[in-house]
Amino acid sequence: MAAVSNGDASLIIVMSPTAAPGDLERLVERLRTSGAGVEVAGRAPRAVLVASGEPGAVPSLPWEAFPGVERALSLTTPFRFVSRDYHPERTIVRVGGVPLGPGGFTVIAGPCAVESREQLGAAAGAVKAAGAAILRGDAFKPRTSPYSFQGLGRAGLDLLAEVRERFGLPFVAEVVDPRDVELVAGYADLVRIGSRNMSNFTLLAEAGRQPRPVMLKRGFTATIEEWLDAAEYIYKEGNEQIVLCERGIRTFEPRTRNTLDISAVPLAQSLSHLPVVVDPSHASGHRSLVAPLTLAALAVGADGVMIDVHPEPESALVDGPQALTPVEFAALMERVRALAAVR
Amino acid sequence: MAAVSNGDASLIIVMSPTAAPGDLERLVERLRTSGAGVEVAGRAPRAVLVASGEPGAVPSLPWEAFPGVERALSLTTPFRFVSRDYHPERTIVRVGGVPLGPGGFTVIAGPCAVESREQLGAAAGAVKAAGAAILRGDAFKPRTSPYSFQGLGRAGLDLLAEVRERFGLPFVAEVVDPRDVELVAGYADLVRIGSRNMSNFTLLAEAGRQPRPVMLKRGFTATIEEWLDAAEYIYKEGNEQIVLCERGIRTFEPRTRNTLDISAVPLAQSLSHLPVVVDPSHASGHRSLVAPLTLAALAVGADGVMIDVHPEPESALVDGPQALTPVEFAALMERVRALAAVR
Amino acid sequence: MAAVSNGDASLIIVMSPTAAPGDLERLVERLRTSGAGVEVAGRAPRAVLVASGEPGAVPSLPWEAFPGVERALSLTTPFRFVSRDYHPERTIVRVGGVPLGPGGFTVIAGPCAVESREQLGAAAGAVKAAGAAILRGDAFKPRTSPYSFQGLGRAGLDLLAEVRERFGLPFVAEVVDPRDVELVAGYADLVRIGSRNMSNFTLLAEAGRQPRPVMLKRGFTATIEEWLDAAEYIYKEGNEQIVLCERGIRTFEPRTRNTLDISAVPLAQSLSHLPVVVDPSHASGHRSLVAPLTLAALAVGADGVMIDVHPEPESALVDGPQALTPVEFAALMERVRALAAVR
Amino acid sequence: MAAVSNGDASLIIVMSPTAAPGDLERLVERLRTSGAGVEVAGRAPRAVLVASGEPGAVPSLPWEAFPGVERALSLTTPFRFVSRDYHPERTIVRVGGVPLGPGGFTVIAGPCAVESREQLGAAAGAVKAAGAAILRGDAFKPRTSPYSFQGLGRAGLDLLAEVRERFGLPFVAEVVDPRDVELVAGYADLVRIGSRNMSNFTLLAEAGRQPRPVMLKRGFTATIEEWLDAAEYIYKEGNEQIVLCERGIRTFEPRTRNTLDISAVPLAQSLSHLPVVVDPSHASGHRSLVAPLTLAALAVGADGVMIDVHPEPESALVDGPQALTPVEFAALMERVRALAAVR
Repeated sequence: MAAVSNGDASLIIVMSPTAAPGDLERLVERLRTSGAGVEVAGRAPRAVLVASGEPGAVPSLPWEAFPGVERALSLTTPFRFVSRDYHPERTIVRVGGVPLGPGGFTVIAGPCAVESREQLGAAAGAVKAAGAAILRGDAFKPRTSPYSFQGLGRAGLDLLAEVRERFGLPFVAEVVDPRDVELVAGYADLVRIGSRNMSNFTLLAEAGRQPRPVMLKRGFTATIEEWLDAAEYIYKEGNEQIVLCERGIRTFEPRTRNTLDISAVPLAQSLSHLPVVVDPSHASGHRSLVAPLTLAALAVGADGVMIDVHPEPESALVDGPQALTPVEFAALMERVRALAAVR
Repeated sequence: MAAVSNGDASLIIVMSPTAAPGDLERLVERLRTSGAGVEVAGRAPRAVLVASGEPGAVPSLPWEAFPGVERALSLTTPFRFVSRDYHPERTIVRVGGVPLGPGGFTVIAGPCAVESREQLGAAAGAVKAAGAAILRGDAFKPRTSPYSFQGLGRAGLDLLAEVRERFGLPFVAEVVDPRDVELVAGYADLVRIGSRNMSNFTLLAEAGRQPRPVMLKRGFTATIEEWLDAAEYIYKEGNEQIVLCERGIRTFEPRTRNTLDISAVPLAQSLSHLPVVVDPSHASGHRSLVAPLTLAALAVGADGVMIDVHPEPESALVDGPQALTPVEFAALMERVRALAAVR
Repeated sequence: MAAVSNGDASLIIVMSPTAAPGDLERLVERLRTSGAGVEVAGRAPRAVLVASGEPGAVPSLPWEAFPGVERALSLTTPFRFVSRDYHPERTIVRVGGVPLGPGGFTVIAGPCAVESREQLGAAAGAVKAAGAAILRGDAFKPRTSPYSFQGLGRAGLDLLAEVRERFGLPFVAEVVDPRDVELVAGYADLVRIGSRNMSNFTLLAEAGRQPRPVMLKRGFTATIEEWLDAAEYIYKEGNEQIVLCERGIRTFEPRTRNTLDISAVPLAQSLSHLPVVVDPSHASGHRSLVAPLTLAALAVGADGVMIDVHPEPESALVDGPQALTPVEFAALMERVRALAAVR
Repeated sequence: MAAVSNGDASLIIVMSPTAAPGDLERLVERLRTSGAGVEVAGRAPRAVLVASGEPGAVPSLPWEAFPGVERALSLTTPFRFVSRDYHPERTIVRVGGVPLGPGGFTVIAGPCAVESREQLGAAAGAVKAAGAAILRGDAFKPRTSPYSFQGLGRAGLDLLAEVRERFGLPFVAEVVDPRDVELVAGYADLVRIGSRNMSNFTLLAEAGRQPRPVMLKRGFTATIEEWLDAAEYIYKEGNEQIVLCERGIRTFEPRTRNTLDISAVPLAQSLSHLPVVVDPSHASGHRSLVAPLTLAALAVGADGVMIDVHPEPESALVDGPQALTPVEFAALMERVRALAAVR
């Protein structure tokens, strides 16, 4: 379960029972030439090679394409700096003045999309009063349909900045275009990369080159390892302030928008030092599930949650069915405080 | 989100824009002949039929096979008696003298498979001391490989009965063959139907014809609706004492054995009056995830959990990697009690 | 891609970088005591054990539960006798007098369920005339809802036998209850185990103890390896006449009932010597997809197909939307013959 | 199965049995105010609303968030101009001088990534000689790990242009950054958007604003409808020359890299007028499956295939295990020609 060590790169190659004479020897030579230590174990017809060495000594080649190879198993993961092998202590990320990480449970809340000064102000006032620490609200929305509302853009960011001043709430906002990273980072306290863009490596790299902390949502069809590989893209460019956000994965179950992978929280925390929060709103797509999933996230050990709250869900331009009303959110916060006290 | 009403059976048929003249009229006549009320809404080229009536008046025909039909949408679910529409109050099932249902959080624990008197006794003593209310332990195991250990059979049931006397713990045991239902029900306090057999309708029917309560695990590839349909098979035969158990679904994520669908707990509770428990051991397949997932199950509102505990996991004949040791289980029970107090 | 050899059982254990001193040595001793050959490769902190030996010498223990173990990888598959390692030549199964296997493309066709003498006779006459070699038609249907039509039972088998005589077509029929295996095998030329029962190991074993050939449908959520493990359950009991049937797997795509896994055909043929057919009707659930998927099955190298044909799909009691009419089926058979000539 | 009409926008709202008095009336008024025609069918407790009107008259609101609503079902799809409702004739896209679309079967082949003049030249010469019509070869590669080879960039495009001249083969190349669209489109005959970027709406829009045809690969976790919605993003900007490419979806089956969704080919062709090709190399990840899947694609009615061919797969920098050798590719082309003659 532990993240594999990256210090001692290793590779296992399982030879096929139908390998030709010489196939094994050629592989051994190839690896030794690169500087790897190679040992051969197991007897014919199924020999096993184990290669060791510093990163780089064991080359990343398509080993399964070599004659006589049945399977190749890398013992290293692509991600390095985001792993707990590299950095055993869990990281606390600061968003505005708000700490997000081990020892706390940070509640981020607000509307899915910024629609107007009134809507944003009403939402921000309500979530602040109920105890949220960070505001959410997007000015750029990636939408499945080109004919759907795509966000207010810069005007939305202006409203967010205005509301931040008014309520003393730092905010998180999504960026969808590498050319807008500088713009969004000029406003937001936490720059978010959404689920659909988790493998948009160009966008990840840009987010890694600016100074704001970044929230990286798990792709709804990404494995945990792919999610951490994506975080590595940001980290590698120099930005070490990353928050991971689990938001549900695509499965065959039709009654929820996605299936919240609650196990991913402790798993990601054991593999990476980065904080992990949960988005129960987008995971479920149903208002009635947001409260139980928030409590589950708290109990499982998440470092926070991000919740859709809208003053009038039925008029929301984006994702209304999953938004809590201010009254529902306040009631949930009561339960969060009670449970957090004994966690 | 509510279960659809079965009292007022309804059907929506969406006609295709390319339907031929007369297709619509033939459908209307067919439905009216059966006794259904039919209304036609929408204008050409896309008419919509809505059929109403008592169950039976709207026949279950392959409507999408009719000429001119684009889509057919049934507003009723196959399950009836297990739904909250039929029985709004949530049900409490009694296992031996132990209540399982709303208002409590029942912990079931013990080894995956009964291996010997010593192993079972050690496990039972440990889980009893730590506060478990029901013992688990199987005498019949469905195994992927025909060459794996398949359980001790009747001898295992004898050991379970002996240990029940010794520790005062009712027990749950799996049945895999319809011909063994009477045998297992003669011993066990709660008869379990496993995930692989959730759609073994023959076995479900037999379980419905005997007097013991039944635990029905969700198939690891079943939707929530299919799970409730399977419960209906049991209920229909006369057995109303059914406990649902969520145990993870098959997804693309390789780091866990299955993905625990934590949202299924509140969903199943809203659709059905039956109690819902969680099996964090089989869902995750990893010892280190059992504690966080148990706490998540408690927080999300589950009515209980079922946990693998083995005195020596490394010698377990089945599913050792996911079993807690007695010491780990006792520590978890402390946390369960603390959290349960404020739930 | 080749099936792993079962003759030279092997196991790889990857130690954790955080293993305690002595963990490795205890594992080595445990394996050697069982009679396995053990070699240790790789250097600390990540040693790798490779164990070899005859089947049985390397015990099937929950190796990942042992202290200090990060991962355990078995190089053997549970299935043995159905593998091409054991039996390199591909098998031809005889159904009545009809060969099914390499070198041919056998078309099985008929109604999903037997409904009446008229319906079955009309379907059988049509598929015979168009060139089908085997008739399908079920007397026992596993249905998701307990309130759906469950088949005519023995009366349906009588009709199938009558129609076999009339048209000279051997037939395949499903069995769902281990207590009915003898009954169904007393009538059918090919006994089928359906997708929902692929892991009903009791039923598999009964099917292995009777003399008729068996068609084993892939579970719609089973991996190819689990499918072959299920075939092994039948084979192990003495029945070597098994036909595998790919019929689609459950995915997130909603526009088809299941997703036909066309790659599974050549994969299963490379791993196992058993013939593999495709069911394009149940895989897609749509009449319009049956013809293209049948041609794809032929081109990919399948040994046959099984197609739903119904004289009046719109009145079918089961699965009407996917059934071809006799006219559609005859047209498809023309195209099958043309393509088969150059395959 | 037909694409829903976009001309006559429609919406079905199913009321909950627990709706409050007035909920229904408020919805009706809201819809009528927008200009929609509304009819109410079905009787209490489950009324059904059907709304009709021109696009725009039925607003896209989060109807399921409204009080009393159980389900809302839109009968329109977000995609319009790529649908066959809008453009019934299937489209032929021209790549360089090569037609790609109905009536032909276009083979695109070459290395996954451009590595050197020698490698590209050898591959191009081989695929040209064997009969490929278009060359593939990428200069920008989106890689899961930031430490993997990311492509030669502009130098790779220069090599592709040089090889195009030498062999008279137009080429397709991937673009991963919206800022590079102009660059890539300045070289390539067909600009490709990869699976990981299918929902990178910024990139899609840029691709829609340049004059070269675009190949849009299906996201490996996208539904067919989401794929067509993504194509609409390109089309909407003015670029009508789009080729769809099915390349496998993510499922639970571990023996293939992805599961080729062969049914998606006829489905996408029935929903959209755009040509559909198959990538058997990336779908399977195994050299041995490329030939059978290519033949299946041909038989199912695909308009072409795109195949990885590498002069030395074992030294490939990207995706070696799935690349055919020139000899294997030539043998496959023989079989393609034979089968294409009778398709």
